[in-house]
Amino acid sequence: MNDFLGVLGGMGPLATADFLKKLVENTPALVDQNHIPVLVYGDCSVPDRTAGILGKGPSPLPKLLQGIDFLNRARVKAICIPCNSAHCWYSEMSEASAVPLFNIVLASAEQVRKRDPRIRRVGVLSTVGTFQMGIYTRALIDLEFTVLAPTEDEFRTLVSPAIALIKASQLNEAEELFRVATAKLVARGAEIIILGCTEIPIGMRGQCQENPSLFVDSTDALALSVIEFFKSQQTSA
Amino acid sequence: MNDFLGVLGGMGPLATADFLKKLVENTPALVDQNHIPVLVYGDCSVPDRTAGILGKGPSPLPKLLQGIDFLNRARVKAICIPCNSAHCWYSEMSEASAVPLFNIVLASAEQVRKRDPRIRRVGVLSTVGTFQMGIYTRALIDLEFTVLAPTEDEFRTLVSPAIALIKASQLNEAEELFRVATAKLVARGAEIIILGCTEIPIGMRGQCQENPSLFVDSTDALALSVIEFFKSQQTSA
Repeated sequence: MNDFLGVLGGMGPLATADFLKKLVENTPALVDQNHIPVLVYGDCSVPDRTAGILGKGPSPLPKLLQGIDFLNRARVKAICIPCNSAHCWYSEMSEASAVPLFNIVLASAEQVRKRDPRIRRVGVLSTVGTFQMGIYTRALIDLEFTVLAPTEDEFRTLVSPAIALIKASQLNEAEELFRVATAKLVARGAEIIILGCTEIPIGMRGQCQENPSLFVDSTDALALSVIEFFKSQQTSA
Repeated sequence: MNDFLGVLGGMGPLATADFLKKLVENTPALVDQNHIPVLVYGDCSVPDRTAGILGKGPSPLPKLLQGIDFLNRARVKAICIPCNSAHCWYSEMSEASAVPLFNIVLASAEQVRKRDPRIRRVGVLSTVGTFQMGIYTRALIDLEFTVLAPTEDEFRTLVSPAIALIKASQLNEAEELFRVATAKLVARGAEIIILGCTEIPIGMRGQCQENPSLFVDSTDALALSVIEFFKSQQTSA
């Protein structure tokens, strides 16, 4: 299966389906056989990543490594993880994997640069766990961006409840909360906003359609980076 | 992995993503951990099923059995195949599998019965291959339904081109053709129409939203049958 993309999914399961859809939609293909074959390990019993980061629940790492091990044994070509919060354990997973792991944070930062090289002030909407671990903040500061994030109060009253609504499939209710969170970031000067949680784009379809240039969807960014890698492998083969 | 659903996917890849989305949306769950864990073997290099049936291309059976074997070795609980045409090889796959296989045709017929027990005249939109193999026709006649399908001419000018458009992600163009194909079936007396190809619902979103009671989406039917099975296993465990 060394031409398969390994997908460590299930975090959440809707985000995995959304990633697969975006992978297909962004692949230039006219027939099934031109698409990238995938092996998806979708273990939705992985403990909540945010709770794990905040010390309010068990660590998801053992289950994450189980998935990495399964995909390695199946001999996939490379592995992607359509879940931003899980990237808090990126180095542990990367060390445990013989095959390369895509990085959703770097893929998103890359898309910001491609969108408009003049952009300096980048907003990030993510889980509170991803924010506290600073994975976007560090990567973006390294690339000389100024980072804007929701305040503690905005996480508590807007972002966290909205993500919970998506997990319960209440997408319209989620979108209302995200509209307010977006407006706050823009008011503080964000020129572009990374949707740094694979669930968030699912609950922001309206806004993303109305104003596509304001957002970088991390799921799309991951899909584009996967497609580019598989294309380069084909060319070099 | 004996609590995982095995998914033999990639036929086509967009249909697999659509199935996973419908599986999640139809599962009563408030958190990730309540969903059904999945292992998706998405080999989109499986030869075209319709061409195989019509003798215009290699048989997809060896690749199908490779997937069934992989999922069996991984010890999934049961296997579903979100591709109607692949069900032309259902008995071969079923014989090769130690774990049970869901049947999308029977799942769809079950949904017709549940929708309205008075319905007698059922239209089926499918690939020409699925139609020629008669898998829906036989199952529906067994259940004492009258079956209506597109004519040879309608397959050639409407249904087959529309499915090719979906595979190339041209959904609006596909929907135009399906509108005509649907109208023809209704004019000939169809009371309900099974979308007997997992790609078709993707290219009929407009019509399905406008008139949901006219259609049974085979992807939804498969998802519902999977959810019911996993729920019954939980209860009996």
